[in-house]
Amino acid sequence: MATPIDFYFAFASPYGYFAAEKIEVFAAKHGRAVTWRPTLLGAVFKVTGGKPLPEWPLKGDYSKHDMQRSARFHGLPFKLPTPFPVGTVSACRAFYATPKDKQPALAKALYRAYFVDGLNIGEIDTVLKIAGSLGLKPDLADSSLKEKTKSEVEASIARGVFGSPYIVVDNEPFWGIDRFDQLERWLAKPF
Amino acid sequence: MATPIDFYFAFASPYGYFAAEKIEVFAAKHGRAVTWRPTLLGAVFKVTGGKPLPEWPLKGDYSKHDMQRSARFHGLPFKLPTPFPVGTVSACRAFYATPKDKQPALAKALYRAYFVDGLNIGEIDTVLKIAGSLGLKPDLADSSLKEKTKSEVEASIARGVFGSPYIVVDNEPFWGIDRFDQLERWLAKPF
Repeated sequence: MATPIDFYFAFASPYGYFAAEKIEVFAAKHGRAVTWRPTLLGAVFKVTGGKPLPEWPLKGDYSKHDMQRSARFHGLPFKLPTPFPVGTVSACRAFYATPKDKQPALAKALYRAYFVDGLNIGEIDTVLKIAGSLGLKPDLADSSLKEKTKSEVEASIARGVFGSPYIVVDNEPFWGIDRFDQLERWLAKPF
Repeated sequence: MATPIDFYFAFASPYGYFAAEKIEVFAAKHGRAVTWRPTLLGAVFKVTGGKPLPEWPLKGDYSKHDMQRSARFHGLPFKLPTPFPVGTVSACRAFYATPKDKQPALAKALYRAYFVDGLNIGEIDTVLKIAGSLGLKPDLADSSLKEKTKSEVEASIARGVFGSPYIVVDNEPFWGIDRFDQLERWLAKPF
């Protein structure tokens, strides 16, 4: 069996959401499993000097338009939420508190809550409610969970992750859902 | 006849070079002409707060790798030049000094000189030599040419251009060669 695809993403990232909706079918087609690895762009931006898309002059307006068009292009439901973006440390902690086999379902539920239903996943109560709907009861105040989440985020930065989605296949990195075309060719045969 | 595609690009942009090599065949396939519109990212970055790709932590290293892989993906010759990037105001002026029918040939010659042959198109003499090889003798010191170039760059920023390539079709903007898939679908039928 080939090694799994490492799928890094941020819960406040629309392009991460699009990727999350597509990656499992995509990976399965190429005989790969997916390791889901949420990270925090706030921590990433401290290292890179980056900032959320809406804060960039010109690029911010373009991006909001592009997110909506990209959703239509990929055939996915999408509504730009307010507020956008939000801090997603609670969402991340809920994910890392969850058994591996239920992590993908929780990730997709959180994404859909935010980008389809417009729920504020920056709020702890909302995260707990979404987790609860899947039968999960994460203790988000647990200190070892906080440490685990922090170390996962630090590991993503050490791996070079600077945006979302960011996919690594056999040490080859692909940033953005718009690299799925190159990723697909790579999975068939490295070039 | 449908309106032409507005093709904004910067001469120091590898992704602009890839787009320049593909856009004419691409546009012709959809019954469109192309209006080539070089701009200056230095002026753009003053407005957006952006900076050249190599200067970004993490993203800089990724980008250098991605440029080379993208060249292979698109089947184009490419060698990351040194120095990179360079200022391209002389290249821009040479372009705007040139009759419309010869502009695309000059743009492609400048791009290939920089990204295939490794010539420094930041230097006036190199720009003049490349123009000369096409039978062109632009007067780069001409003050009305400087004004023309400046106003074209300002117009690009007023249009919302924040990166390269940036393509506008019937007021619909597409940033990046990785939006050619959406652009292609849009040309067939707006969605």
